Amino acid sequence: DRPLAVIAGPCQLETLDHALTIARSMARACEAAGLGYVFKASYDKANRTSLGGRRGPGLDEGLAILGKVRQEIGCPVLTDVHAPEHCAAAAEAGVDILQIPAFLCRQTDLLLAAGRTGAAVNIKKGQFLAPWDMGPVAEKVASTGNERILLTERGVSFGYNTLVTDMRSIPQLARTGYPVVMDATHAVQQPGGLGGASGGQREFAPVLARAAVSLGIAAVFIETHEDPDNAPSDGPNMIPLDAMPALLSDLAAFDRLAKERPLRP
Amino acid sequence: DRPLAVIAGPCQLETLDHALTIARSMARACEAAGLGYVFKASYDKANRTSLGGRRGPGLDEGLAILGKVRQEIGCPVLTDVHAPEHCAAAAEAGVDILQIPAFLCRQTDLLLAAGRTGAAVNIKKGQFLAPWDMGPVAEKVASTGNERILLTERGVSFGYNTLVTDMRSIPQLARTGYPVVMDATHAVQQPGGLGGASGGQREFAPVLARAAVSLGIAAVFIETHEDPDNAPSDGPNMIPLDAMPALLSDLAAFDRLAKERPLRP
Amino acid sequence: DRPLAVIAGPCQLETLDHALTIARSMARACEAAGLGYVFKASYDKANRTSLGGRRGPGLDEGLAILGKVRQEIGCPVLTDVHAPEHCAAAAEAGVDILQIPAFLCRQTDLLLAAGRTGAAVNIKKGQFLAPWDMGPVAEKVASTGNERILLTERGVSFGYNTLVTDMRSIPQLARTGYPVVMDATHAVQQPGGLGGASGGQREFAPVLARAAVSLGIAAVFIETHEDPDNAPSDGPNMIPLDAMPALLSDLAAFDRLAKERPLRP
Amino acid sequence: DRPLAVIAGPCQLETLDHALTIARSMARACEAAGLGYVFKASYDKANRTSLGGRRGPGLDEGLAILGKVRQEIGCPVLTDVHAPEHCAAAAEAGVDILQIPAFLCRQTDLLLAAGRTGAAVNIKKGQFLAPWDMGPVAEKVASTGNERILLTERGVSFGYNTLVTDMRSIPQLARTGYPVVMDATHAVQQPGGLGGASGGQREFAPVLARAAVSLGIAAVFIETHEDPDNAPSDGPNMIPLDAMPALLSDLAAFDRLAKERPLRP
Repeated sequence: DRPLAVIAGPCQLETLDHALTIARSMARACEAAGLGYVFKASYDKANRTSLGGRRGPGLDEGLAILGKVRQEIGCPVLTDVHAPEHCAAAAEAGVDILQIPAFLCRQTDLLLAAGRTGAAVNIKKGQFLAPWDMGPVAEKVASTGNERILLTERGVSFGYNTLVTDMRSIPQLARTGYPVVMDATHAVQQPGGLGGASGGQREFAPVLARAAVSLGIAAVFIETHEDPDNAPSDGPNMIPLDAMPALLSDLAAFDRLAKERPLRP
Repeated sequence: DRPLAVIAGPCQLETLDHALTIARSMARACEAAGLGYVFKASYDKANRTSLGGRRGPGLDEGLAILGKVRQEIGCPVLTDVHAPEHCAAAAEAGVDILQIPAFLCRQTDLLLAAGRTGAAVNIKKGQFLAPWDMGPVAEKVASTGNERILLTERGVSFGYNTLVTDMRSIPQLARTGYPVVMDATHAVQQPGGLGGASGGQREFAPVLARAAVSLGIAAVFIETHEDPDNAPSDGPNMIPLDAMPALLSDLAAFDRLAKERPLRP
Repeated sequence: DRPLAVIAGPCQLETLDHALTIARSMARACEAAGLGYVFKASYDKANRTSLGGRRGPGLDEGLAILGKVRQEIGCPVLTDVHAPEHCAAAAEAGVDILQIPAFLCRQTDLLLAAGRTGAAVNIKKGQFLAPWDMGPVAEKVASTGNERILLTERGVSFGYNTLVTDMRSIPQLARTGYPVVMDATHAVQQPGGLGGASGGQREFAPVLARAAVSLGIAAVFIETHEDPDNAPSDGPNMIPLDAMPALLSDLAAFDRLAKERPLRP
Repeated sequence: DRPLAVIAGPCQLETLDHALTIARSMARACEAAGLGYVFKASYDKANRTSLGGRRGPGLDEGLAILGKVRQEIGCPVLTDVHAPEHCAAAAEAGVDILQIPAFLCRQTDLLLAAGRTGAAVNIKKGQFLAPWDMGPVAEKVASTGNERILLTERGVSFGYNTLVTDMRSIPQLARTGYPVVMDATHAVQQPGGLGGASGGQREFAPVLARAAVSLGIAAVFIETHEDPDNAPSDGPNMIPLDAMPALLSDLAAFDRLAKERPLRP
């Protein structure tokens, strides 16, 4: 019943300054709205639609930036890991939450390696999975003795190049006992929808965020950028940074009401 | 920005007494929650999964019951029409809202006949349609000069025997300018899921209702029965009548907040 | 194990001359390929995407044309019926096969009226149904004592504005004991995909036809027109008339092989 | 236009003897049917539904077994790789075709590492991808200068716990210019459908295989086991080994016909 946390940041790390600017701005907006804040960014986009898509600064430089954001802004940080051998490095660099990408959410070795770090592990539900398929996925992490698990809804395949978010997933994921996160910006992606890149419907991210928050969730995940249309990845679905304060104010109001009035069993 | 209306009643008409009992109970619960109320019931279930499914009292007896509910309870009434030639009869009997069933939402003659009565027309979005496909559907009714149109989301086909509700549909339907309704109990149907009948997931109807209401809608549609498991149709997805007051109180709170904070364009 | 029948003709009836030209051409091509032939055309397109779409000549004129095609060409004729009261008229006019449109395949009264005529009844599987949902649908017709039933696969909803054909449907529909038809041209429709009209992927109709024929079916359904791009409806998915002989020759070869080598149970 | 190749073997490697028995039996059956043969088995099932699922002998022992099968039976061998660092080892051990698992088909580093070995690379289309999304995927491999690429259809997400195979995918994948493979046994999986394991519909694998072969493909992929119901993984969808000769005889007949009569453009 704690207030909503906001996991937010740019899709991929660009420079230290860029990361600090966004983190500072988001931390301030979350504080104003009475919400928690976790900085999010990727050091490597390991599964871009096309080879030509930019991938980010890589593990070493990326972890260094994340460590400085954590230190300067004083917020926890989250990043996604793509190989078992990256997990320990990320945790040692102080990453608070290791995120398992949706495509990789069934890869046993990655889940075990992440669990073994003792860091929190946020598992994105694969676009090819039902909510109830996430129980066995979470158990892989929990088998390491690490129960600091979060489960993220980010849409499910619905025909070609389209995702749909099934709101029944929120209470179904919650049955596992783990906190549930709504990834509002990836859920509006149109995978591969631009031919050599993914499209997105930025305008619907607040719609899905609000609907999920009204059901009572632990956190909302939102990618944001000061200039999405010129961002190196995920531009079509990221929310402009200057639209975040108003959005967070709305979400905070729905979050308070949802926690006053939890869904009846 | 008016308060949410609740379109509610049993799936099919049984007896006059039964209709009055449910209507009276729902009218009271809606008033207590500060919500509008429209009584809903079908005189004929024209597309049961199996021939053996009960169909209801038929047009003449059904319209007579609806007229009495309207008179005694003082609420508007809604019923679904399945043939062009039923529209005028229903409107003349005082039915306030003619509803076009989802399977029939592309049948031009039915839409025109409903429009020509001058009654309000609630068109359910077909399980096989995208939100943007409803513009041309509404235009068929509007071509009669009748703009008293409502558009209802009730889920879209998602694999076999399953529906999913895409919450992006709510703002997309709203772009037509017509009021949007969320049918929370049909959206949790499992069509054909019991072999010779449709299954349902009653427990998720409040989930979808709340998510849609938080986005700002005109009305929510909920089938209810004092004993769903023994109802002649749609038992698996109807909400027990005695659970309605608490549900409506929750929905009213989310409705007020949604109307204070409309989705930003 | 009889040779494949081909149900083919224009989407909608235009003029008697037009119908005769297509029927004559198709009858000749089917004979050359050693296949049976049934002329198909609609007298009324009752569920066009938009009000502005052309609907055809109507019941009376349409039945008259169909009767003349039947007489002059000597082939059976099929047409779709949209209201219970049209069934008897169509059967009396000599229509050999009454077809139930996919959207209407659960409308009990229409199925019963069609069954009662004693004519053969071809039921298209709704885009919102699983193959196993067609058992109870066929039983509605069979309850009239008329077992001359055919079941047609025409694709199932797959995301928005898209259909997919599940080839598992062919043997699953066959389990009912009724002959199975593959509607190759509607299965490549993109419903509503052009905004105010349906799109289509004509180039894939032969793909789906061949795949289904290789599994051993009773008939293939193909809409054809001498100038699809200027046809009043379904242009994007109809096959040009002059491409039919080569297509039928291919299908006949696969049909012979499929019937030599039925799927093993 | 070469005859169909059959990529077949058990889902996971068990013992050397087991592998040899299956490979010998399959090689004989393929020869009898006039078809090519590639032995397939996994050394590690890296993404089992549950942690408790058996994973196989691991990289070193697995590659040793594959090498001996190759030597003794004289057929090419295929295995799937899950980490970039496994690719070179597999290629050096003589694996002829490295297979990229469907969940991993967008992982750039894995695709590049596989490509750099110079071995053939069979990329399974993700359950979350459209056929046209595979162009940029194949380009990642081709960027290494290795054009020995195969693309495999294995079904696409269709609601929860269900896949559907879209036969339009076959000609669409072929537009890349790379050989197309139909994975008939994974396409009938029901992912997660048994709760802690995936279900399957073995009886439909021959249906999908035949439909795809009739469209003209380079290879069919079929997992087989002498006792599927007691196999360590994928039992519900594997074909019994003793059913293979009859199935291959059928497929060979359809393959010959398909190559005589290629789909017309």
